Amino acid sequence: MIQHIVIYRFKNPSPKLFETIKDKFSTIRGNVEGLLRLDVGEDIMHLPRSYDLALYCEFSDRAAYDRYQGCDLHLAVKAFMKTVVSESHSVDFEN
Amino acid sequence: MIQHIVIYRFKNPSPKLFETIKDKFSTIRGNVEGLLRLDVGEDIMHLPRSYDLALYCEFSDRAAYDRYQGCDLHLAVKAFMKTVVSESHSVDFEN
Repeated sequence: MIQHIVIYRFKNPSPKLFETIKDKFSTIRGNVEGLLRLDVGEDIMHLPRSYDLALYCEFSDRAAYDRYQGCDLHLAVKAFMKTVVSESHSVDFEN
Repeated sequence: MIQHIVIYRFKNPSPKLFETIKDKFSTIRGNVEGLLRLDVGEDIMHLPRSYDLALYCEFSDRAAYDRYQGCDLHLAVKAFMKTVVSESHSVDFEN
């Protein structure tokens, strides 16, 4: 299994933006073979090290990860994220 | 449920360091009431935005999160991490 984590900071973070992003990512859920789980949530702790929002996905294997990266639904969300994100970092790990 | 994500970059990343960190975090697993899941893994994608390693935890509720933050096993790992980490960021979200 591959666990895929991305954390984001935004140019103009707001509750409305977070809801928009959650709605957009939810279009992908259930539509990529091998995408076992996709969670999105805004940070609730607001620590100095906190980013604004995280994406957490689980994929059955590398082929599923690649399908997700290339699928049109994901590319549409990615294009939107590019317009609102100021910084993002990721970690992908296997278990 | 609270999902707790921390991503790290290290002063001197190495496979040996990643194994040490995984061993240290595994001492916490099963020893905090309400800590439902704790995964640690080193990045396998090595993208420009990638960090070196991630911690992913699930807590039943905020009380469990607080127990984890205050427990001696976690504080010991945190003290070690402080000596090796160069940057870290987190997102904590509820689902």
